[in-house]
Amino acid sequence: MTVVAKSSLIGKRIPKMDAPEKAAGKTRYVQDINLPGQLIGKILRTDRVHARIVSIDTAAAKALPGVYAVLTAADIPKRGLGVNKDNPPLKGDKVRTIRDEIAAVAAETEEIALEALKLIKVVYEDLPILADPRQSTQPGAPVIQDAKPDNIAMTFDYAHGDVAQGEKESDVVVESEFYLHYVTHCCMGVSGIIADFEPTSGNLTLYSNTQVPFLHKREFSEVLGMDPGRIRIIQPPIGGGFGSKLDIYPFEPIAVYLAKAARRPVKLVFTREEEFLASPTRQPALCRLRSGAKKDGTLTFRAVDILLDNGGYTSWGATIPFVMMQTFSSLYRVPHCLFHTKAVYSNNPYAGSFRGYGNLQATFTVEQHMDMLAEKLGLDPLAIRMKNAQESGEVTGQGMVFTSCGFKECLTTAASRSDFARKFTDYAQQQSKPGNKKRGIGLAAMIHVGGGAKIYPSDGCGTILKMDDFGHVTIMTGASEIGQGSETVLAQLVCEELGLPLDAVSVVNNDTEVTPWDVGVHASRTTFIAGNSAIGAARKAKDKILNAAAKVTNMTADQLEMRGGFVVRAADGEMVMPLPKLLRSLHFSDKAELVMTTHYYEPSSVHQDKKFMGNVSATYAWAAQICEIEVDTDTGIVTLEKVTAAHDVGRVLNRMGLEGQIEGGIVMGQGYALTEDLMVRQGKVLNPGFRDYKLVTAPEIPEMDISFIESMDGEGPQGAKGVGEAPAICMAAAIANAIHNATGVRLTRLPFSPENVYRALVTAKGGVVE
Amino acid sequence: MTVVAKSSLIGKRIPKMDAPEKAAGKTRYVQDINLPGQLIGKILRTDRVHARIVSIDTAAAKALPGVYAVLTAADIPKRGLGVNKDNPPLKGDKVRTIRDEIAAVAAETEEIALEALKLIKVVYEDLPILADPRQSTQPGAPVIQDAKPDNIAMTFDYAHGDVAQGEKESDVVVESEFYLHYVTHCCMGVSGIIADFEPTSGNLTLYSNTQVPFLHKREFSEVLGMDPGRIRIIQPPIGGGFGSKLDIYPFEPIAVYLAKAARRPVKLVFTREEEFLASPTRQPALCRLRSGAKKDGTLTFRAVDILLDNGGYTSWGATIPFVMMQTFSSLYRVPHCLFHTKAVYSNNPYAGSFRGYGNLQATFTVEQHMDMLAEKLGLDPLAIRMKNAQESGEVTGQGMVFTSCGFKECLTTAASRSDFARKFTDYAQQQSKPGNKKRGIGLAAMIHVGGGAKIYPSDGCGTILKMDDFGHVTIMTGASEIGQGSETVLAQLVCEELGLPLDAVSVVNNDTEVTPWDVGVHASRTTFIAGNSAIGAARKAKDKILNAAAKVTNMTADQLEMRGGFVVRAADGEMVMPLPKLLRSLHFSDKAELVMTTHYYEPSSVHQDKKFMGNVSATYAWAAQICEIEVDTDTGIVTLEKVTAAHDVGRVLNRMGLEGQIEGGIVMGQGYALTEDLMVRQGKVLNPGFRDYKLVTAPEIPEMDISFIESMDGEGPQGAKGVGEAPAICMAAAIANAIHNATGVRLTRLPFSPENVYRALVTAKGGVVE
Repeated sequence: MTVVAKSSLIGKRIPKMDAPEKAAGKTRYVQDINLPGQLIGKILRTDRVHARIVSIDTAAAKALPGVYAVLTAADIPKRGLGVNKDNPPLKGDKVRTIRDEIAAVAAETEEIALEALKLIKVVYEDLPILADPRQSTQPGAPVIQDAKPDNIAMTFDYAHGDVAQGEKESDVVVESEFYLHYVTHCCMGVSGIIADFEPTSGNLTLYSNTQVPFLHKREFSEVLGMDPGRIRIIQPPIGGGFGSKLDIYPFEPIAVYLAKAARRPVKLVFTREEEFLASPTRQPALCRLRSGAKKDGTLTFRAVDILLDNGGYTSWGATIPFVMMQTFSSLYRVPHCLFHTKAVYSNNPYAGSFRGYGNLQATFTVEQHMDMLAEKLGLDPLAIRMKNAQESGEVTGQGMVFTSCGFKECLTTAASRSDFARKFTDYAQQQSKPGNKKRGIGLAAMIHVGGGAKIYPSDGCGTILKMDDFGHVTIMTGASEIGQGSETVLAQLVCEELGLPLDAVSVVNNDTEVTPWDVGVHASRTTFIAGNSAIGAARKAKDKILNAAAKVTNMTADQLEMRGGFVVRAADGEMVMPLPKLLRSLHFSDKAELVMTTHYYEPSSVHQDKKFMGNVSATYAWAAQICEIEVDTDTGIVTLEKVTAAHDVGRVLNRMGLEGQIEGGIVMGQGYALTEDLMVRQGKVLNPGFRDYKLVTAPEIPEMDISFIESMDGEGPQGAKGVGEAPAICMAAAIANAIHNATGVRLTRLPFSPENVYRALVTAKGGVVE
Repeated sequence: MTVVAKSSLIGKRIPKMDAPEKAAGKTRYVQDINLPGQLIGKILRTDRVHARIVSIDTAAAKALPGVYAVLTAADIPKRGLGVNKDNPPLKGDKVRTIRDEIAAVAAETEEIALEALKLIKVVYEDLPILADPRQSTQPGAPVIQDAKPDNIAMTFDYAHGDVAQGEKESDVVVESEFYLHYVTHCCMGVSGIIADFEPTSGNLTLYSNTQVPFLHKREFSEVLGMDPGRIRIIQPPIGGGFGSKLDIYPFEPIAVYLAKAARRPVKLVFTREEEFLASPTRQPALCRLRSGAKKDGTLTFRAVDILLDNGGYTSWGATIPFVMMQTFSSLYRVPHCLFHTKAVYSNNPYAGSFRGYGNLQATFTVEQHMDMLAEKLGLDPLAIRMKNAQESGEVTGQGMVFTSCGFKECLTTAASRSDFARKFTDYAQQQSKPGNKKRGIGLAAMIHVGGGAKIYPSDGCGTILKMDDFGHVTIMTGASEIGQGSETVLAQLVCEELGLPLDAVSVVNNDTEVTPWDVGVHASRTTFIAGNSAIGAARKAKDKILNAAAKVTNMTADQLEMRGGFVVRAADGEMVMPLPKLLRSLHFSDKAELVMTTHYYEPSSVHQDKKFMGNVSATYAWAAQICEIEVDTDTGIVTLEKVTAAHDVGRVLNRMGLEGQIEGGIVMGQGYALTEDLMVRQGKVLNPGFRDYKLVTAPEIPEMDISFIESMDGEGPQGAKGVGEAPAICMAAAIANAIHNATGVRLTRLPFSPENVYRALVTAKGGVVE
């Protein structure tokens, strides 16, 4: 008797399946793809912040040998991009931001294209610049978009309870104004696209780094006025997304229009400077937050008024209130909540979506207020959070349903592993002692969607599974691998169902022609949604296999199991038949069959109503992060020493991948808090390069202690939740709290650069910095 | 009321879907694919015909900068390729043919690789050459393969009835010896492959022109000793196959071993000269045929003895008796049949499979004998064929079952459209008249498999179908498009089921990772087998759609129909709902669903038993072709003037594609008969280039009159049968019969080159040619 042991890949440390190719330099990014007959596209951008376009003369550019197409707004349909459809791919009337696209060229080589750009003559008439969003709605402010004469791009109003009543019941109230700055995604792979029309059908293939291939089909069809069924999106491995590739941006239709005009494939790839100037940013915000609590720490109300600088055009940045309000309304039990946000036009750059999607900004404010309330009440930061923390089974004022919630375990785990209570007290006591090196520890917590976010009529994902005659499985999933490790997790989940080793599964996920629908990579949804979809397809395959095995073994399907590449007897693991043999017997029988299955998974979450009420995600992720820092009060330099993180991940699927996600997120949050600053002054970007824009690099990465809370979500794949965005969210808040712990000074403006910190410390003591 | 008219693409003239890309120069053949880090592989071939290898010195080649790997037989596993596993990728003991592979190099550039080949020193000891297969089994003949000391590679013996009895019942008997020469496929795209290992998993991807990707996975796994599930075959558009890419040939594993040794992707592409020297040929044969008939023309028996020159190694050429015997046993009703074939080793090139797979050779002999018997009996060629022709419902001595048979209609249609009877008589009467320009007309007919050939445990094909939210359909089919137009036919069949325009369907068919199993492109099977598979998947999709439509319309599914991209009321065509709207309502409903289906089709044909009995194909194709020629008796030049062809195609699916197949096949058969001749002398190929190997070109293409007989096969997709090989099969026989009609001389040796014809005409009159 041969017994096949039961084994599982769940929770193991599994290297990412796409890692070897990337490490070996074999990965072919959009930069590496070249189609026969391909031209190079380049965009002429304005050098003005706000100006009327008087004339554009492209005659010399068109006459340059090697130039195949020169386009201006006059050559393309007048359809705007983005959330408010206010961003024409090429600007014909006026320019509103420094990144604005005026003309585009397709030429045989990059050199010729750049030469052609130089030959284009634009005459402008300058307009007054609106650079401060606080001025946008003042009387007499320059109008940025004629369709919105009040300069208001978007407003969001949400409420539950009655904040006036909440305020009455409060023993303490704190109010602050917070400023959240510009940062940008800094993807290692810059933006790029190749547009290719089929010669006679006119069908369009896009090699695109988009994070949402299936939504892109629809969006491109609207922009281009063509049947979306005739648009195919091939997604090469992308060099980082982080939300920057959710929207459609001008360079993409520009490449398509160039390809159409030139009747040749056109490749358009940004330079690094262009990436800094013309890719989206994280949404800057000015938040006024008022919070109250009772003596015992019970929260009473929260009132928020936020001003978002929308820049010249409206992309996803303006919609971050969808996520922000969840933190205000539902991270803690808040009986009364009032939320108002206004996004106003200016002549500044515009923001897109960015990992965390407004939650870094919201958490920055809420989690500082938790410490401020605690301080006023004489409570410690952990206690006030435990007092108000959500638990499994709760339904929040906004209608969010917490089926699995490890929030309190996150808080206590992070606190105990970091020795938070003792250190917090010690460091506070050392504030007044002599010396310029002050240590501090700070806690922040967060909630984020962990099972998708139904912002589209469907939040689902389809999977097609097929097996060859040798037991090799291919899953074609709608979900995209953009570096987050989803390919590996999906393969693990399929292996778990089918009792196979990891290398028996291939994941195909990069071509809308082949893969079924998925809403795209955002909202930390892929493991949860695509995972459930893959499991569904695998279970159907298992049914087919075990039923076939039952027929040839005189056992019933439920007496059988799949393990280690074999069909085995469930009771004792005795090997019944190697899987390949069974597959071939199925294939080569009279009623020949292949194992091919399909599955579509749609989560039970709902589209929120007009009042923003509803359970938008199938589950929610929780985390607490504690930062230990040292502040040099002479220089303002803040050094992040250690991060203790505890995340409710539902269940650990790939421990290595999960650690990578958490570590990467922590570092991204660290950069947001301490070093990164896209300096926009009077509409101009002053530091479009890595010399002047400081990313966190290896030597600055802190010690990390990461714990996973396994709340075993009932609907999650093997109990897991999404965690892609979570680790970046708490960092700025935790560091702010740590700086306060170290110095007694509360910093409300990001980033905590040496200059900003130094100024704040001096100013707090009544000093003046010149 | 909006009525959607019923429309159909079946029988229409549809340009091939891949034609625009090819015409526009956008198609990327294996030659155009370059992987990052790729090296160029080159093979050192011997310049001897038969020799022992004394030593190979690769030291200098290995030392050349830019060389990454140099391999000889000593470096690779000892596993032989081909039908008899007698062909090691690299030869270590001795060379047996002029094409033999001695060593291989992978280098940074082609120049360096070629330079390295020059530096390899091989010492040989010549062996006696065996160039005439008639000598192979003579005592004392040199032994080619030690494992087969009798030089017999393979034998085939088939019989039904009792030929002795048949001979007794005969009123006339004819016997002849026929010689069939070497030709080669002359694919416009030469052979090539790229082998690429994944860095850590060791999984292998092959960019291969193979016609049988799924069988290739298994065959490569045997050669390489690796799990076939870990081999992925990507098939770029191939520049012609015609059977030449059915087997695995030495260059393919050589490229893999080079990639393994160099740890880099290796691309190995033939030069045109190499393609002539080292790609397969059509199987040459020496056939002795004896046939008898009664006075009324009724056939009595047929006895065949064939000697196949197997060359130095055994590829598919040796197995053509599988197909040859069908023509001998079953083209006509033959009560007694005896078939013996022996394939013997020699030092000549070896043959692979080639469009028609032995049937050109068999038909050449059988169809001349039909004319010879008719002549002896004073019957006309049409009459004797009509007398013995198969009909629907017959089961032959070999067990072939004719469910649909338009053979007689083919014969009568071709005869009447070409005015055969009158011309045949006229031209015969003009033989003796003065003048050197003689006209002749000749008829030949054929049977060929039209619904696959079950030579493997399965002859089926899988299809996966998915629809997007906009009504665009992708089918992923196991079947390969290799220029035969299958992509277009499959799309048509799916459109017919789903009431869609052609451009609503994309066909994905080039990657074993994505597509389900199919046995490959051979045996004229793709339209029939893959067509039925695609229809199955489309019908399941239609069921899903009409059932969903039924739910929202208060009608039953069978009251609904799909037409022109709409769901309509079946009774009157009234538009009920656009398809995209229905698909989105299905997707965005509570019980969200996508339309994804899978189907596997396995034909009812059987694997023949050891006596070669059994119904090997799901249906059979029939044809009659009539050639009109002019012979210049002074020069031996035969000019093909007109071909009248009538083909039982079951049903016309794509009229334009079908005409293209027939026209191309006619020209290929014309080349086989008249101009093509791979001149092998003492084992050497004398004419490895298009200067000396004469393909038929545009000016020589005859007038063609093509008729389609629609026998509406009950099992065929929309009634269709396979027809890929059929049109090449009759040509040589029909031209031979026409030359006889023109000159009274029977030519039994191919090709009918001016020299051969002139010699034959002179010799027939007792003359001598020096």
